[in-house]
Amino acid sequence: MPAAVTPEFPDHLRTQVDDYLAAIRFSDDPALAGLQDAMRYSLLAGGKRIRPVLALATAAAISMPVEQVLPLAAALELIHTYSLIHDDLPAMDDDDLRRGRPTCHVAFGEDVAILAGDALYAEAFRHLLTEQRGQPANLLRAAAELAGATGVDGMVGGQFLDVEASAPAGAGGLRHLHELKTGRLIGASVKCVLLIDGGQPAATMERFEVFASELGVLFQIVDDILDVTGSDAALGKASGSDERLGKRTYVTEFGLEGARRLAREAHHNASGALAGAGTREPGQLQQITDFIARRSF
Amino acid sequence: MPAAVTPEFPDHLRTQVDDYLAAIRFSDDPALAGLQDAMRYSLLAGGKRIRPVLALATAAAISMPVEQVLPLAAALELIHTYSLIHDDLPAMDDDDLRRGRPTCHVAFGEDVAILAGDALYAEAFRHLLTEQRGQPANLLRAAAELAGATGVDGMVGGQFLDVEASAPAGAGGLRHLHELKTGRLIGASVKCVLLIDGGQPAATMERFEVFASELGVLFQIVDDILDVTGSDAALGKASGSDERLGKRTYVTEFGLEGARRLAREAHHNASGALAGAGTREPGQLQQITDFIARRSF
Repeated sequence: MPAAVTPEFPDHLRTQVDDYLAAIRFSDDPALAGLQDAMRYSLLAGGKRIRPVLALATAAAISMPVEQVLPLAAALELIHTYSLIHDDLPAMDDDDLRRGRPTCHVAFGEDVAILAGDALYAEAFRHLLTEQRGQPANLLRAAAELAGATGVDGMVGGQFLDVEASAPAGAGGLRHLHELKTGRLIGASVKCVLLIDGGQPAATMERFEVFASELGVLFQIVDDILDVTGSDAALGKASGSDERLGKRTYVTEFGLEGARRLAREAHHNASGALAGAGTREPGQLQQITDFIARRSF
Repeated sequence: MPAAVTPEFPDHLRTQVDDYLAAIRFSDDPALAGLQDAMRYSLLAGGKRIRPVLALATAAAISMPVEQVLPLAAALELIHTYSLIHDDLPAMDDDDLRRGRPTCHVAFGEDVAILAGDALYAEAFRHLLTEQRGQPANLLRAAAELAGATGVDGMVGGQFLDVEASAPAGAGGLRHLHELKTGRLIGASVKCVLLIDGGQPAATMERFEVFASELGVLFQIVDDILDVTGSDAALGKASGSDERLGKRTYVTEFGLEGARRLAREAHHNASGALAGAGTREPGQLQQITDFIARRSF
C-alpha cells in the first residue's frame, strides 16, 4: 500500500447511508409491524455498509451528487441484509450470532426470518424502481444488473455452490464461487451507478469493472483471513465458522501467508484499475480499497 | 353465471405459457445445474398458470398481441412458484406434497429449496427487466408494481399475517390477509399489462382494478372451499391442510354455504367490472372468471 494513502473509511458516507436506511418505512399497516420489526432489526444492526458506501463513492468519482444514488445504495444494503438472514438460517449456515446480536431467526423465529429476507429483497426492488431518479432506460439497465447480480449467475448461485460444495476444484473454482457469492453484488454497487449515469465511455466502464472485480476478490480474501485470525468480538460472530462448516476458503486453499499475498495482489490490481479509470475523484474509492486491505495486515 | 358462457379455461394460452416457461434457461454454468434443476422441478410441475394466463388474456382484451407480454407472464409464474416453495418449507406450512409430487425441499433438501425460491424471484425480475419489450418508463412502472405486489404490502406481508395469525378479526381482516397474500399478485397479472401498454384511459384502469380485486377474492374463496371439499388427488396436495394448520379461511369464517354465496357475489362483481371496462375482447378474461367460479359449484 502506498505510504501516502491513509486507510480511513469514508465514515461520512456511511453516516449518510445509515440515516437514509433508518428513515425507510416499508408499510403503514399495523398488522405488519412484526414483519417490519424483523426486517429493521437486521437492516439497522450496523456494519460498514461497504456496498452502499461503494455506490456513493462511485457517484463521487464520476462527479455525480452522492445523494442522487441513495435509493440504489439502500437497495444494495437491503439485498445484502436479506442474504445474511437467509445464510444464517438453520438449514443453511445455522449461525446464532451476527454483528454481535442474535440472528434474525433466533430473535423472531425461523418462519418470520424467511419472510423478512424475502420482503427485504422485494422492497429493495420496489425502492429502487420507485425512488431512484434517472433516465428510465438507464434505470432499467441498473435494475436488470442488480437482478442478475443476485440471481442464479450471481449471489444465490454462489450461495448454492457454497452449501453444496459443488464449485470446481482449485483456485479457479474458489474464485468463481466467490465471484458469484459476493463479487457480483460488490460489482453491482459500482456498475449500477455507472449505468444510472449512462454517460461514461466504454473504456471507463471496463476499468471500473476490473476494479470492482478485484475489490470483490480482495474483500473475500480478507473475510476468509479474519475468520481465522479475528476475535469473536471483532467479527460480531463466532470466528472459525468456515472451519466448523468445512468450507473452502482462501486460507484453506493457500494458507494464511498465501492468502495475504493474494490480498496484496488484489489490492494492487484494484488500485491500478481505479487509477486507470481516469475519473476526477477516485479518492473515496481508493480509501475503501485501502481500508479493506488493511484489515488483513 | 350467464348460461351463454362456457366455463372453459383458455387452454391455448396456458400452452403458450407452458412452452415459454419450458424454454427458459437460467444459467449455462454446469456447476449450477443442481440449482437450476430444483427451480425447474417446481416451475414445470404444471398447474393452471392462472396468473400468466390472466396476463395474456388481459393483453388480448386490449388488443395487444399476447406474445408481447410472455416475458411478464413468465415473471409472474416464476414469482408464484417461488412463493409456493417457501410456503411449503418445514418452518412455514410444512407441506410434503404439491401438485401431486414431493415438494421442493423434500426432493432437493431444505437449503436448496430456500435458494431455489430466492433464485426464482431474482430471475423473475431479471427476465422481466431484460426480455420484456415496451417503453422504458412503462416497464419501470410495471416492474415497480410487481415488486410492490410481492413485498411487505403484498404477497410476503400476507404470508406473514397468515403464519402469525395476526390479521385483524372478522371478515375485513380475512379479506385483507388474502388481498395481500394472493390478491395483489393476481391484480398485478392484470395491472402490469395495462402499465406496459400505457395507453388505457383512467376509467378503464379503474374497472380493471376492481375486476382483478374481485377475481382475487373469488380465487381465494374457491381455494378455501376446495381445501374442504376437494379430494387429495384433485388438489395435488393433502386436503384439509388449512384445518390442520388452524388457518382462518372463508369456510371457517362463513361456513361452506356462506363461502359459496360470497363466491357467487365475487363472480358477479368481477364480471360486472369487466363488462364495464369497455374493452374489445373481454372473452378470455370472462372465461377465466367463470372457470374459477365453476370449481366451487
